[in-house]
Amino acid sequence: MAKIDLEAIIKRYDLENISIATLASHSSLQIFHGARAEGLNTVAIVERSRLEFYRSFTRLINDFIVVDRWSDLCSESVVEKLRELNSIIVPHGSLVEYVGSECAESLGVPIFGLRSLYRVEASQRLKMDLLKRGKIPVPRSFSGRDLDDIDTLVIVKLPGAKGGRGYFLSRDPAEIRLRLKRLIDEGVISSTDDALIQEYVVGVTAYFHYFYSPILDRLEILGCDIRYESNVDGLKRLPNKYIEEIEPTFTVIGNIPMVLRESLLLKVYDYGMRFVNETKRSLPPGIIGPFCLESIVRDNGDIVVFEFSGRIVAGTNLYIDGSPYSWLYWDEPMSVGRRIAREIKMARDRRLIKKILT
Amino acid sequence: MAKIDLEAIIKRYDLENISIATLASHSSLQIFHGARAEGLNTVAIVERSRLEFYRSFTRLINDFIVVDRWSDLCSESVVEKLRELNSIIVPHGSLVEYVGSECAESLGVPIFGLRSLYRVEASQRLKMDLLKRGKIPVPRSFSGRDLDDIDTLVIVKLPGAKGGRGYFLSRDPAEIRLRLKRLIDEGVISSTDDALIQEYVVGVTAYFHYFYSPILDRLEILGCDIRYESNVDGLKRLPNKYIEEIEPTFTVIGNIPMVLRESLLLKVYDYGMRFVNETKRSLPPGIIGPFCLESIVRDNGDIVVFEFSGRIVAGTNLYIDGSPYSWLYWDEPMSVGRRIAREIKMARDRRLIKKILT
Amino acid sequence: MAKIDLEAIIKRYDLENISIATLASHSSLQIFHGARAEGLNTVAIVERSRLEFYRSFTRLINDFIVVDRWSDLCSESVVEKLRELNSIIVPHGSLVEYVGSECAESLGVPIFGLRSLYRVEASQRLKMDLLKRGKIPVPRSFSGRDLDDIDTLVIVKLPGAKGGRGYFLSRDPAEIRLRLKRLIDEGVISSTDDALIQEYVVGVTAYFHYFYSPILDRLEILGCDIRYESNVDGLKRLPNKYIEEIEPTFTVIGNIPMVLRESLLLKVYDYGMRFVNETKRSLPPGIIGPFCLESIVRDNGDIVVFEFSGRIVAGTNLYIDGSPYSWLYWDEPMSVGRRIAREIKMARDRRLIKKILT
Repeated sequence: MAKIDLEAIIKRYDLENISIATLASHSSLQIFHGARAEGLNTVAIVERSRLEFYRSFTRLINDFIVVDRWSDLCSESVVEKLRELNSIIVPHGSLVEYVGSECAESLGVPIFGLRSLYRVEASQRLKMDLLKRGKIPVPRSFSGRDLDDIDTLVIVKLPGAKGGRGYFLSRDPAEIRLRLKRLIDEGVISSTDDALIQEYVVGVTAYFHYFYSPILDRLEILGCDIRYESNVDGLKRLPNKYIEEIEPTFTVIGNIPMVLRESLLLKVYDYGMRFVNETKRSLPPGIIGPFCLESIVRDNGDIVVFEFSGRIVAGTNLYIDGSPYSWLYWDEPMSVGRRIAREIKMARDRRLIKKILT
Repeated sequence: MAKIDLEAIIKRYDLENISIATLASHSSLQIFHGARAEGLNTVAIVERSRLEFYRSFTRLINDFIVVDRWSDLCSESVVEKLRELNSIIVPHGSLVEYVGSECAESLGVPIFGLRSLYRVEASQRLKMDLLKRGKIPVPRSFSGRDLDDIDTLVIVKLPGAKGGRGYFLSRDPAEIRLRLKRLIDEGVISSTDDALIQEYVVGVTAYFHYFYSPILDRLEILGCDIRYESNVDGLKRLPNKYIEEIEPTFTVIGNIPMVLRESLLLKVYDYGMRFVNETKRSLPPGIIGPFCLESIVRDNGDIVVFEFSGRIVAGTNLYIDGSPYSWLYWDEPMSVGRRIAREIKMARDRRLIKKILT
Repeated sequence: MAKIDLEAIIKRYDLENISIATLASHSSLQIFHGARAEGLNTVAIVERSRLEFYRSFTRLINDFIVVDRWSDLCSESVVEKLRELNSIIVPHGSLVEYVGSECAESLGVPIFGLRSLYRVEASQRLKMDLLKRGKIPVPRSFSGRDLDDIDTLVIVKLPGAKGGRGYFLSRDPAEIRLRLKRLIDEGVISSTDDALIQEYVVGVTAYFHYFYSPILDRLEILGCDIRYESNVDGLKRLPNKYIEEIEPTFTVIGNIPMVLRESLLLKVYDYGMRFVNETKRSLPPGIIGPFCLESIVRDNGDIVVFEFSGRIVAGTNLYIDGSPYSWLYWDEPMSVGRRIAREIKMARDRRLIKKILT
């Protein structure tokens, strides 16, 4: 991968006319909404088939860059256009998935966020290692080689942000071995090591939305949500006699708001700080802006983190006018999308823009 | 039914002093709240027993028309009073249920919405036909005559907006036949054809709130919710050993907010446009204002619409200060109730009031 | 317990410089946020280990009183400091739990709320008696002496606001007897009478947030929520074959927003008024400010109240920028925390401060 000379690119930018650019998907409407609330220009990189829909949000998007396929993001002409518009890319959960990690890592346009985290996020194992180094409690995990050690219920997860599709539960090593073999035969994974096999922690799920501000050196808890998953959240409404033949699936369809017990927030804040500090140690300059710790809360109040996202998550779309937590920090409706734009403006105004771009 | 000379009635109205009138039930507090936010006068048609409660909302309601029973809405004196106040009726889910379809269809007061849709909404079969003509995916359905073709789990629904009371699940033709017979014997339905027998689609429920503006010729997605149903959403908290004897029931008690994955919104928008266009074709001038597509989202992202409502739904009561979607279109807190009042004001100010009344 | 001369204490207060003080837990962030929105000074009584976290909310808290343990609230120096700051204590669900009922009842600082209710709240039996006297429907209950009369599914609840930990379900008198005996042996309870044994009402849970204003003599419905409980709300996502060995537990982890059918609100309002009136009768001057009726809604629309809280509940933390209901009463974002501060200001400005303090 060619090294990008970010400094040279930013030097040529007209910082008084920054654009916030993102792929038209995932949480882009929130990102555009927040940027407009902060008075910044917005650029949607959009596949032709989605253009009509995104055009219907007339207040949100200033410029469209229409592409035939998402991976055109890294084409010379799109990069050129983005630079002309003094664009800062705000990455979201679909970026790496849509354009591929090579494009995302080498893209010649400044990104708001920690680009070196993409390589970690591509590997379930590297992700869990980072959490463990940060002393954040994670579920026990098993590899293809120690399937026979499994003595508890586990969830088997496949790589990539596919919204939970293909995950399955089991406590039987033989069944897991068989199903992984089938997935290899079908070409879904290339070896058992591609799957993440984690203890299924009994408790309730909770997804914590954080924002770390390098400019204020402050960690903010900006929200919390629960995922709404098909078909598992529908199955539970069926009488038992009808459920039995149906395999539960875990495709994320949407998100439901929640607030946590205030006494649990202390732990949530502490884990967030551990994540910030660990990324500063092992991936300097460390996390920039939004991230999410995806967790199970046990009935004794213990919190176990089974996954993280080093960027804005879709659950924040709930809080486009502010969340029950963002109002504690800000006197204005502050979505994560708007918080990103605010951080960029603060960085620019304090001549610290390089601190938040990679 | 007598033809109403709507044009003559509106001609006598003082359009600078419009009142928004509705039955005090369902989503009336939202409708009043929205009308007041737009500076319009509000009129509650209210049964005597409910008067004290509605009076406690002192900011919301300007005029009360107290009735002994809801069907008095169509009495001469009430109609006279409504006209004096230059009233536009905003219909909601309880209107037809409370006053009967004959009164609703022949009421001599202008209605914001598509009155000809009431006849369609009264028949599950006509409703599904309209969706099918619009090329909106619906569940397979069965009639009383082809019960023996049932080879999947079905849900049997009874007519009328009774909030899901009396619905039941089965995959056994004999059981269904028996239960329908019992319902006929009990006088709940008059023939098996009154029941809607639909494939029970496995996935999660999602209710999409739309607003079609004839004035702006624009479709807005204003929200999304999940219904909270008794006892089915409580049963799932019981251990299996205690559940078995209890029959699940589906009475809507309330609504829970949710947001959808952004990538699913494109499909949601597309289905909404199909609904708008189909109603324009088969029921000109077509839908006016709020409607809802009630759907199941499968784990592969397919959306199947099992029901629609051609007016404001109670799930919009969640978003009285704006929804995560309404903020994308409007810079102000825009509930569906307020959006209705806004549309009426825009129509009046552009001298297009007849375009939105039937 | 020494009688507190509240009148003398208030007489020495500088009412133009009131402070809102509360223990840093439960709903304190909301209480501080609301007080600041009303321009009042805020005081956090905080355990040392929590100080860093609460300090991160720089906008919310004016003064910290750091204690080594919560019960120091009643120490002379803390009381002195609170009086110096003209403090009014806003109690929440952790107050009595953290400092003990003796301290809470005898604390020499004015409390916003009905202090004599603490003694009732400490006893499940006195609580249910108060509801019954108020003619609010409650579940059937059983005592340790009539275990053999149990002919339905019951839930056994342990005393204290422990967030549902240790609750269990059964329909078997022998099993209940055995488990209660074990709890006595473990020292969790001292006799079977400490446990509340209630019929498990089949339906869905709903928690109604009220505010009774002695100043306006008005009952406001300010919100509604559902509790999110570990592990019971997670178990339902597990396939049956994996659930069976796991005992459901009911620890409250957080809260999820909901709105009710408008037609049910009339009953909710009526029950709230009955609660207000009953507390006026049996515990004059009656309830002051926030309370909550914790209920099951059956599929026929009946509402059964299984518990109440005579103060702000954590579910209100959802609505820090206003709830779907608070907007019906107030033209501004009105959380319960802010509503408390508003009531205090209204009382002061009308020279009625003694009406709301005990």
